[in-house]
Amino acid sequence: MSTAYTQERLQRHIAEAAAQVRARHPLAGSITNAVTVDFVANAQLAAGGAPAMVYLPDEGEFLASVGGATYINMGTLLPIHAETLPRTVRALAAQHKPWVLDPVAIGIGALRQELLVDFKDYPPCVVRGNATEIIALAHLWQLDTDAAKANLRGVDAHNAVTEARGAAVALARHTRGAVAVSGEVDLVTDGACVLHCYGGNHFMEKVTGFGCSLGGVVAVYACCSEPLVAALAATQLYNLAGQRAAAVAQGPGSFQVAFLDAVYNAQPAEIAAVPFDIEDA
Amino acid sequence: MSTAYTQERLQRHIAEAAAQVRARHPLAGSITNAVTVDFVANAQLAAGGAPAMVYLPDEGEFLASVGGATYINMGTLLPIHAETLPRTVRALAAQHKPWVLDPVAIGIGALRQELLVDFKDYPPCVVRGNATEIIALAHLWQLDTDAAKANLRGVDAHNAVTEARGAAVALARHTRGAVAVSGEVDLVTDGACVLHCYGGNHFMEKVTGFGCSLGGVVAVYACCSEPLVAALAATQLYNLAGQRAAAVAQGPGSFQVAFLDAVYNAQPAEIAAVPFDIEDA
Amino acid sequence: MSTAYTQERLQRHIAEAAAQVRARHPLAGSITNAVTVDFVANAQLAAGGAPAMVYLPDEGEFLASVGGATYINMGTLLPIHAETLPRTVRALAAQHKPWVLDPVAIGIGALRQELLVDFKDYPPCVVRGNATEIIALAHLWQLDTDAAKANLRGVDAHNAVTEARGAAVALARHTRGAVAVSGEVDLVTDGACVLHCYGGNHFMEKVTGFGCSLGGVVAVYACCSEPLVAALAATQLYNLAGQRAAAVAQGPGSFQVAFLDAVYNAQPAEIAAVPFDIEDA
Repeated sequence: MSTAYTQERLQRHIAEAAAQVRARHPLAGSITNAVTVDFVANAQLAAGGAPAMVYLPDEGEFLASVGGATYINMGTLLPIHAETLPRTVRALAAQHKPWVLDPVAIGIGALRQELLVDFKDYPPCVVRGNATEIIALAHLWQLDTDAAKANLRGVDAHNAVTEARGAAVALARHTRGAVAVSGEVDLVTDGACVLHCYGGNHFMEKVTGFGCSLGGVVAVYACCSEPLVAALAATQLYNLAGQRAAAVAQGPGSFQVAFLDAVYNAQPAEIAAVPFDIEDA
Repeated sequence: MSTAYTQERLQRHIAEAAAQVRARHPLAGSITNAVTVDFVANAQLAAGGAPAMVYLPDEGEFLASVGGATYINMGTLLPIHAETLPRTVRALAAQHKPWVLDPVAIGIGALRQELLVDFKDYPPCVVRGNATEIIALAHLWQLDTDAAKANLRGVDAHNAVTEARGAAVALARHTRGAVAVSGEVDLVTDGACVLHCYGGNHFMEKVTGFGCSLGGVVAVYACCSEPLVAALAATQLYNLAGQRAAAVAQGPGSFQVAFLDAVYNAQPAEIAAVPFDIEDA
Repeated sequence: MSTAYTQERLQRHIAEAAAQVRARHPLAGSITNAVTVDFVANAQLAAGGAPAMVYLPDEGEFLASVGGATYINMGTLLPIHAETLPRTVRALAAQHKPWVLDPVAIGIGALRQELLVDFKDYPPCVVRGNATEIIALAHLWQLDTDAAKANLRGVDAHNAVTEARGAAVALARHTRGAVAVSGEVDLVTDGACVLHCYGGNHFMEKVTGFGCSLGGVVAVYACCSEPLVAALAATQLYNLAGQRAAAVAQGPGSFQVAFLDAVYNAQPAEIAAVPFDIEDA
């Protein structure tokens, strides 16, 4: 499949998305895990969005309705998620609202597996995960029968991003959206083009929630732009802020603080200028 | 209604409240939202209090009984809150213990609405919220029938503080306590006097939990002082610490870190010296 | 009871444990409280471990099975813990997997008491708590009938560490593991020797989660070493990092940030060199 995008056009879209978010402060509700919920909210605020986190079914439906996009992260499930998540994704689908899925911890527990299977028919506009999670989700949705069954170990990333290329493209084509695979070089695809994104820092693996909060920021951008641009713009914001934070950090604690500062201070043109390559899928 | 307070007398009370809290480290239990629970606890500790957070009904009753005051924040409700919150507010009322209500996210979801209606007959000693939340609560409790029905959008503040003056006074008179409305200029009232409080910084809107943690610190102060003083002293501590943090912050991440340092380092006389105006309600 | 350990042998084990953790990044799952779950995960990452946090019963069993050790912290219980915790400790016992118990808030609420009683027959390899909590657990398990019944006040520590010596030794002998009592001078025992550990800083009482996150780091070390060494190595890492953080902190906010940096940067030989005394139990 060939793509209609050029690098210049995508850079223009990144800058527009970042500027729109800063101007409009769009509401992006989240149903997300307890470990990193604070970081998700603070990253969304720093990027220019308005966060709101809920657990209950009618509150998930409400945010689906009033928000520009919704973020769903599968970590630290509670029993109520068995009701909240199906109702929320149905509300999102019924209203053609975009949402972002982070399939964190895929492979652990019966409820998570059951919910993720259910989502196949109410697909997100963006899936964000590490290589192992993306491969596992494509396998769960039977989109990538050749991919080796993911050999999961907790919430770690241990597959290389390049190994997830086929799974990411398959997921993007099924969802008619985009997929962002986080790693040393990130991969973003809409099923037609594949983008390789540079930057970031190794400390992003040494603080919990960089993946989760990136997913939350993708949802903020998805309030103002199409899936591929939302996934790419948020990824490049993180790559820029990660590099800037690393320049002043003494360790993971100061890295996270400097990262939030850098997200807040990043200008649209700077985000658009972070290097990436484009190729056909 | 005219007030018995003068500015000087209130300043003396602020300094006494702050000094008492630092000397006694009072226990103020919290039932609060998952997003900012860490920040609430750390702000309470930095101010001199002793935090304890719970979810279960008998634990809420226990903290109501042993704590000097209790903080109840309505964010991120779970099913168990349907039992825990009514039982806790009844225990507080039966023991004439002060408590602080943050009606965050008022207007979202059936359970929150039902619980807030129930609280009308077991009133808090202090309500803390932004202008939109205060207007909505006065409306829900049918205390301010002229106030326009709140036009809510997520957890954002978009009504100006001055618009909430009537609602705040009405709530304070109903509860026979105090109301603190957070904004660029904060408003604190006991239904007899209205105080306008200066300071703070715009970064307090760019990090999640400044409102929640202020509510938690009001509860700490309410262990040692009457409602108006508790609401005012905590508000002024935040105004002072916000200004000091802004002087060194590079963005929202470093602002939050510097803010906790400044709360910890603020001296009673300095908190009392933060400017505010007083007028009759 | 006399001990086979010498100070030099323990120092060698500390350095080995720290080096192993940095080399292997062992997975240590946690069922832990909502207040400090973020700090627990970040401390585990900074120490070299791989965290994973869950609430649901089958997920607790899964982590018990695949992790090197598990951390169970009794704060902020939800109804689901009534099922998750008994199933998880049984899975741990059945597979002879080490786990670390933090009996935080012992004495508050019926469910916590019931669960802690149940754990007596599925004992952890390390118990970590403050003096009050350790005394209360020994009393609950009827291991220390002479100890005064703990006079609890919230989650504060108000018994001195030395008062908990008998309770700690009794618990260590019952569990055939180790006990770490946190305080100004920490006490670590395996029931045969008693270690007194120096360092740390008063700010560790002024930020929530230093106790919880220490428990999480003990679990990470317990993936690679025996209980006494795991408890001691983690305690000394905290004593070292606390001193280093205090040298640059302006208050509790900057202390926590600098602490995580210091945990990350601490070298095995430096951790082993933190002073401690050894005596027979």
